[in-house]
Amino acid sequence: MLAHRLIERKRDGGRIEPGEWRALALAYAKGHVPDYQMAALLMACFLRGLDRAETTALTEAMLGSGERLDLGDLGMARVDKHSTGGVGDKVSLVLAPLIASLDVAVPMMSGRSLGHTGGTLDKLESIPGFRTDLTLAEARAQIEQLGCAMMGQTPEIAPADKKMYALRDATATVESIPLIAASIMSKKLAEDLTGLVLDMKRGSGAFLPELERVLELADVMIKLGADHECPCVALVTAMDRPLGRACGNALEVEEAILALRGEGPPDLMELTYALGAEMLMLANAAPDVDTARREMEKAIGTGKAAERFQRIIESQGGNPGVVDDPAVLPQAAECELYQAPRRGFVARVEPRAIGRGIIELGGGRTRVDDIMDPSVGFVITARPGDWVEAGEPLATIFARNRSGIASGRETLRAAVVVADEAEPPLPLISHRATIAGAALYRKE
Amino acid sequence: MLAHRLIERKRDGGRIEPGEWRALALAYAKGHVPDYQMAALLMACFLRGLDRAETTALTEAMLGSGERLDLGDLGMARVDKHSTGGVGDKVSLVLAPLIASLDVAVPMMSGRSLGHTGGTLDKLESIPGFRTDLTLAEARAQIEQLGCAMMGQTPEIAPADKKMYALRDATATVESIPLIAASIMSKKLAEDLTGLVLDMKRGSGAFLPELERVLELADVMIKLGADHECPCVALVTAMDRPLGRACGNALEVEEAILALRGEGPPDLMELTYALGAEMLMLANAAPDVDTARREMEKAIGTGKAAERFQRIIESQGGNPGVVDDPAVLPQAAECELYQAPRRGFVARVEPRAIGRGIIELGGGRTRVDDIMDPSVGFVITARPGDWVEAGEPLATIFARNRSGIASGRETLRAAVVVADEAEPPLPLISHRATIAGAALYRKE
Repeated sequence: MLAHRLIERKRDGGRIEPGEWRALALAYAKGHVPDYQMAALLMACFLRGLDRAETTALTEAMLGSGERLDLGDLGMARVDKHSTGGVGDKVSLVLAPLIASLDVAVPMMSGRSLGHTGGTLDKLESIPGFRTDLTLAEARAQIEQLGCAMMGQTPEIAPADKKMYALRDATATVESIPLIAASIMSKKLAEDLTGLVLDMKRGSGAFLPELERVLELADVMIKLGADHECPCVALVTAMDRPLGRACGNALEVEEAILALRGEGPPDLMELTYALGAEMLMLANAAPDVDTARREMEKAIGTGKAAERFQRIIESQGGNPGVVDDPAVLPQAAECELYQAPRRGFVARVEPRAIGRGIIELGGGRTRVDDIMDPSVGFVITARPGDWVEAGEPLATIFARNRSGIASGRETLRAAVVVADEAEPPLPLISHRATIAGAALYRKE
Repeated sequence: MLAHRLIERKRDGGRIEPGEWRALALAYAKGHVPDYQMAALLMACFLRGLDRAETTALTEAMLGSGERLDLGDLGMARVDKHSTGGVGDKVSLVLAPLIASLDVAVPMMSGRSLGHTGGTLDKLESIPGFRTDLTLAEARAQIEQLGCAMMGQTPEIAPADKKMYALRDATATVESIPLIAASIMSKKLAEDLTGLVLDMKRGSGAFLPELERVLELADVMIKLGADHECPCVALVTAMDRPLGRACGNALEVEEAILALRGEGPPDLMELTYALGAEMLMLANAAPDVDTARREMEKAIGTGKAAERFQRIIESQGGNPGVVDDPAVLPQAAECELYQAPRRGFVARVEPRAIGRGIIELGGGRTRVDDIMDPSVGFVITARPGDWVEAGEPLATIFARNRSGIASGRETLRAAVVVADEAEPPLPLISHRATIAGAALYRKE
């Protein structure tokens, strides 16, 4: 009866009260509310919206449907970074060990790839032996020891959100700002953070391409953080092209390791430092961006960050040798250069097409239970705006066999556009938003 | 994938094409589309609406998800009457045998009571032995022999609608005009009718209380009929008070039998004749209302209509003796007069309160599987506008025991309002609508 009444009220544009969200989330997590009632409610929420108080209450309700980490007695600041998802985005793999090596805890719970966007868990699992299914107790112990755990959402964390997210995926109710915000934040708040940095992607490869919607989502998430005493800072960053060069699970791990040695591609390094600086400032571990950046460069230069990654990998059952020798990672059977079909400017490198191309190579997922080949993908050296001559190498295709190479060529032919003119790409970081509002991003 | 795409499109205000509705209805009836996807789609339809072409296509799709009667070779006109539901509405019980006795086939498929409104099947089943679960073959044979079958929706008829209706009930997506219209018409069109009369209730006890919405629903249903070569006429009738005097299953059968003998209460007789005249005119069995009425009065006066009811009851396994002696019906253990608490005008007899009161007596249903006691209910002799003295009998309560009598008194105290003034009640029949539009109803 509760569910029916709430569906009816939301359907007619009314509000659902905090106690009702709580009762609903608990009943749904326990299976007392059927999926079909929740599906009707989610569609009503999608079309009627949720106000700030409702979004906060829903987040709280999903958080409260399960357990959470309790890290208050660690005596350390706990920060995390969340990205809204993109192609080639391996920043988490660099940031988590880097920030942990600077004595700030990073209790990082990540997701899997779905659709054209990649997922941190899948990338990590391309490291032989790496386990992402830590229990809360294991995670806590590792955070105490190494300042960091890199894990998936455990079954105890926000079970109502877990069920609801799968249902939204099946019922075309994903792209709702309050539902997205509540889903992300219910998981992040379960990490018991003292601060959270949001990497809000914009552009054609982003989940929400339009700047206005991205800022709206950032605003809702920042307010949710504030309502739960978890200050948030958001950077709006470019996803009109892949981030870095490597796209594909093992290839991205290799590039992340390069970055931990200070040898990552410039855009990856710049974004990592920018997000890392926000994390360090939120943790009161650095007074300003410049100091934070120097600290991070030092951790990378001395090998401290890479070593921390090695210890995390070892602690989670993976082969730590990967940090010194990325050839330990699964290697594609075939690879081939892809050359510019003509001279001109690189006008676009379309991330959605690249992401879908990885799926076609067998390295992505269209359904939750698809098995992925971690070795396949692309390394794309061409950047939008580059001038290239006909026949110049633009990328390398990594595939399981010759037909994969052919499919990869098709992907690149469509995704990498060489033309007489090129529009300037989006700025790598365009806006910074806090509880005080959003402003254009300025390097300090 | 089909369902997801259609949900997404309807969510964004787009149209679903006839072939898509067909595929969806078939897949849903077969269990290939899960309830949660259909629930999300239904909520999107509820909030975004369906245009005429979509409503027609949905009706067609639900109709096509199952079998239908094929009565084309009977060589008779086939008409039915559908009511949007109310309290005390036993018109179907009178009309079906009356019209069949005038050589017009009435292949009547009815529903059950749910919520405060009654259902023809439940009324019929209060006749000892009466079977409403006829197969299509049994129904056809009886229509050939007696011109009439009074039955429920068989499992073969519009199975997609049957599943969808149950789902709508659970997901607060019932009150949508296109969904209501498509649901009703998919069943009625399965009766292979040559004409259909719609009794569209308005007023506080109606499913849709407001005239404007009632006319809108009538318009959609009339157009659906026209799109399927089934001309429809709708009368808008009063449900701001119960129809007739008896409210409760067996009590209503008794009153219907009185009406078949010409001794029903005036409002019941008037509405029966008005709806029956439309049926006879649609069947080309009468040129005008006056002729139709004379024919009906004759069928009643000669006992032909009552006799036809008797034969239908016998053919469907019921005790035909009920027509001569309604005492054969289940009798309530307790009954008690209810007297006016003061002198004044009867200002209101609230049908919803009466309907809910019957449920409290154990004679209604709040869930599909509730078991009902057919003997309980009310006979309310007071009509809105009547002047009554304190202590004058207004109604009789029929209950299973003394506590039922007490509950019935509570119901009547709230439902029957005696006051210094009384607003005039709604006209019994206020509008008549056809494919040409709606007009005020005028007795000819």
